[in-house]
Amino acid sequence: MTRARDAAVAAASKLFAERGYRHVTIRDIALAAELSPAMVMKVVGSKEKLFHEVAEVQPLDLTGIPDEELGRALVGNIIERMQTNAVEPLGRAIMLRLTAPDPATIQEKFTSGYFDALTERLGGDDAELRAELAVGALMGLAATLRIFEAPHSAAQSDQVLLRFGDIVQKLLDGDHRGTSGQGGEVSGP
Amino acid sequence: MTRARDAAVAAASKLFAERGYRHVTIRDIALAAELSPAMVMKVVGSKEKLFHEVAEVQPLDLTGIPDEELGRALVGNIIERMQTNAVEPLGRAIMLRLTAPDPATIQEKFTSGYFDALTERLGGDDAELRAELAVGALMGLAATLRIFEAPHSAAQSDQVLLRFGDIVQKLLDGDHRGTSGQGGEVSGP
Repeated sequence: MTRARDAAVAAASKLFAERGYRHVTIRDIALAAELSPAMVMKVVGSKEKLFHEVAEVQPLDLTGIPDEELGRALVGNIIERMQTNAVEPLGRAIMLRLTAPDPATIQEKFTSGYFDALTERLGGDDAELRAELAVGALMGLAATLRIFEAPHSAAQSDQVLLRFGDIVQKLLDGDHRGTSGQGGEVSGP
Repeated sequence: MTRARDAAVAAASKLFAERGYRHVTIRDIALAAELSPAMVMKVVGSKEKLFHEVAEVQPLDLTGIPDEELGRALVGNIIERMQTNAVEPLGRAIMLRLTAPDPATIQEKFTSGYFDALTERLGGDDAELRAELAVGALMGLAATLRIFEAPHSAAQSDQVLLRFGDIVQKLLDGDHRGTSGQGGEVSGP
């Protein structure tokens, strides 16, 4: 039973991320998991339950990394997943959010899993905003590498690590050129 | 005929971007466009033809913007589209790429429309890589604001313009901390 359940969850995880919720049937999952559709229903309950089980947030791995190296470490993780052809949670999050049977639940789950978890780690002024912008940049890099398969970035991963690592760090730190530009007011009321 | 065609294309554009290719039927498009399904088929030919028509790249608007202001201008466009609730092409691109009936064609269209067009504008060393990374960051911002509806970024758009504008500019310029960090080799062989 546990083995059947694991097989069904693994198959569903892959299929939902590739095709979205509505395009995947219990029959598709059964076929990929080498189970009967009846067995899949028995071990998982329903397609919607299975989707929620699969659409778990995989928290960013931040333990033991000094604050000033977070940017490169997070970018390094994305590059490593690309090179080992591992599932990219930040790319998957976009697909799951777009196709979820109940978008609000998924929205909340991803918001607390990615934005809030990083906010807590960062602390300090503007931590929420800094976390959102840094996760945003990382999600964009994940989409560029894994969804659009940008060839020059794939071929020059050392440069991607340096350049994108730096800008993620800047977003995490809240560094910017300040108020001198044409960007309008920055200081508070 | 032209009016019917325009209505069908407008309805399809919205529905494909929201639900993906396979989840949208000619009947859905007809309903949204207030036409009969037969009329939709008559003016557009097929669902696949319609998808390709709709999945056009909307090139980044770069004319007349000095090189050193491109980052803020591009981020400013994304913020403006959010505030006016206009379609976000960079968010849409992800959905269309993920659900396209023939992903390779869409891939090529978006690659040349976004990466190559910006590469040409930038010129110089590494222009391809700089363009990919900058478009990646912009795509991530678009997803954060429009797909994940990040609340702090939506509420502090002046800060988003400053901070994200700066990091996109750095990616466009190819600035980074250089070889001194823990990032390994940078200089060529």
